[in-house]
Amino acid sequence: MRIEIAQAAECLKQCEDVYILIHQSPDGDCVGAGFALMQLLHAMGKRAKVLCPEPIPARYGFLTAPDSGEFPAKYVIGVDVADLQLLGNLRSTYEGHVDLCIDHHISNTDYADRVCVDPDASAACQVLYEIIQALGIPLTDSMAACIYTGIATDTGCFKYENATARAHEIVAKLKREHALPYARINRNMFDVKSLGRLKMERAVMEIMEFYLDGRCTMICVTQDILRQMQVEEAELDGIAGLPLQVEGVEVGVTLKEKEPGFYKISMRSADRANVSRICGQLGGGGHVKAAGCALRGTLSQVKEILVRAVEQELALL
Amino acid sequence: MRIEIAQAAECLKQCEDVYILIHQSPDGDCVGAGFALMQLLHAMGKRAKVLCPEPIPARYGFLTAPDSGEFPAKYVIGVDVADLQLLGNLRSTYEGHVDLCIDHHISNTDYADRVCVDPDASAACQVLYEIIQALGIPLTDSMAACIYTGIATDTGCFKYENATARAHEIVAKLKREHALPYARINRNMFDVKSLGRLKMERAVMEIMEFYLDGRCTMICVTQDILRQMQVEEAELDGIAGLPLQVEGVEVGVTLKEKEPGFYKISMRSADRANVSRICGQLGGGGHVKAAGCALRGTLSQVKEILVRAVEQELALL
Repeated sequence: MRIEIAQAAECLKQCEDVYILIHQSPDGDCVGAGFALMQLLHAMGKRAKVLCPEPIPARYGFLTAPDSGEFPAKYVIGVDVADLQLLGNLRSTYEGHVDLCIDHHISNTDYADRVCVDPDASAACQVLYEIIQALGIPLTDSMAACIYTGIATDTGCFKYENATARAHEIVAKLKREHALPYARINRNMFDVKSLGRLKMERAVMEIMEFYLDGRCTMICVTQDILRQMQVEEAELDGIAGLPLQVEGVEVGVTLKEKEPGFYKISMRSADRANVSRICGQLGGGGHVKAAGCALRGTLSQVKEILVRAVEQELALL
Repeated sequence: MRIEIAQAAECLKQCEDVYILIHQSPDGDCVGAGFALMQLLHAMGKRAKVLCPEPIPARYGFLTAPDSGEFPAKYVIGVDVADLQLLGNLRSTYEGHVDLCIDHHISNTDYADRVCVDPDASAACQVLYEIIQALGIPLTDSMAACIYTGIATDTGCFKYENATARAHEIVAKLKREHALPYARINRNMFDVKSLGRLKMERAVMEIMEFYLDGRCTMICVTQDILRQMQVEEAELDGIAGLPLQVEGVEVGVTLKEKEPGFYKISMRSADRANVSRICGQLGGGGHVKAAGCALRGTLSQVKEILVRAVEQELALL
């Protein structure tokens, strides 16, 4: 059942002995929302703990706080978890037993008994902030740091479309009322990369090919190239966005060779091109600015197909 | 004479036929403030134009607007110009003739008759916004885009310490009241780089050396290396900040060989190290997080001196 902010606040008043579930590949928003909620429940005199299917990376350590130790759950809340799949190894235990979900994903699958979702909110932390306001409970500095980090994370530090007026209003209030080391948080969240990651990104930029007067780039990650770059495929996470850094690029295409003659393709649009339309025509799909498909053929055949498809889309702009 | 926001508003009411001067190496803040002010003066029924000592780069073209054509100046306003030196080839004409300066640099040299400086403001655009509020003149969408771009530019898209509560409040208001293509602006300002720049950054990362367990990095730009990288020294603008991207780096040191045996050094601190103290001990100076000095000797002597100096500072942390 979908519920409003005020009803979610009511649920938090009523609940006892709470397990808070956050998603796998934990990020600043789910860790921030999870631990802000835990501290809120502590302030309300309740026992609570955060459960994550994977260890929380050290860079989010500053958001965590001591939990209430061992106790059996009477109430389970999913936070920033749009789909049960994202619960990883926690899924089998909690499927069908999630009492409340606090989220901002339009794709939320309503797996919880009560679901408080605001798809216009920049982050789950923004939804939680509104619930805390409805409760009238003052934030601590530590909760404020959690809420700030969630909003900053999901808006790309206020860079994306979802950095709405409301998101800025909340952050203004957090900065006015709390001692927030936000410049340090931003640096750790957005500027710092491991040396290995920086080297990998460099290697990827090195093999980037340019088509259609530089409006289309292609990165072809063959098994050979993976061996040459000495990286695991998992480490290539997020490289599809790299070509969009280059001035003049409208569509960035990344090919990954899954087996000889079979390629998985990720496409990203810088601005106006609709890559969902391009990938749709090639049997795939996705969002307007991020989509994918799979193609069979030789590398040169596949590249030819992709360049022609991108060319057609660019002709529409 | 230093004046307050209300007095600056009064100056704008009184003035006629205005030349607005912005600084060399124009950026989003001076271009945004310059053209927002020009449009404000137009809305007040006055003639105005923006003068820049250098051509305004194409990426800031969306901030510009048609001026009032040719007319002789009766009033001259410097915007975001802390020092006459920043006026480049406009200096000789306007030195001693600047009636008003609107700025946010604590280092403003008071070269204008009246100076409205708020060092706590994130950007000159923020100071101008407060003046416009005092005047009670409504912003147009185009002026709002100028003010937004200035604040976003100077705060590193809300990443730095100067992204204050007030800066967020203003941006929230601009986003609520105007059609602002902010995601597109942010992408063009903060994500996109020329291919040449990306290649140069890659080459620089390639020659980076690590000292003191990776807490100190050094980039040694010798004349030999410049020739090898095939870049002009001017293109190396801003590379001193690159090492701070690397996880674990506390101090980034960049050496530039000016002539055989003579090096200019830039130092940047990621967070806690005081590079002003380090450079001060070596005969230089600067800010806590960005400082410089000059050293003579062989490359290996100079590197040894620098590593020892950084080591001493890190031992204090």
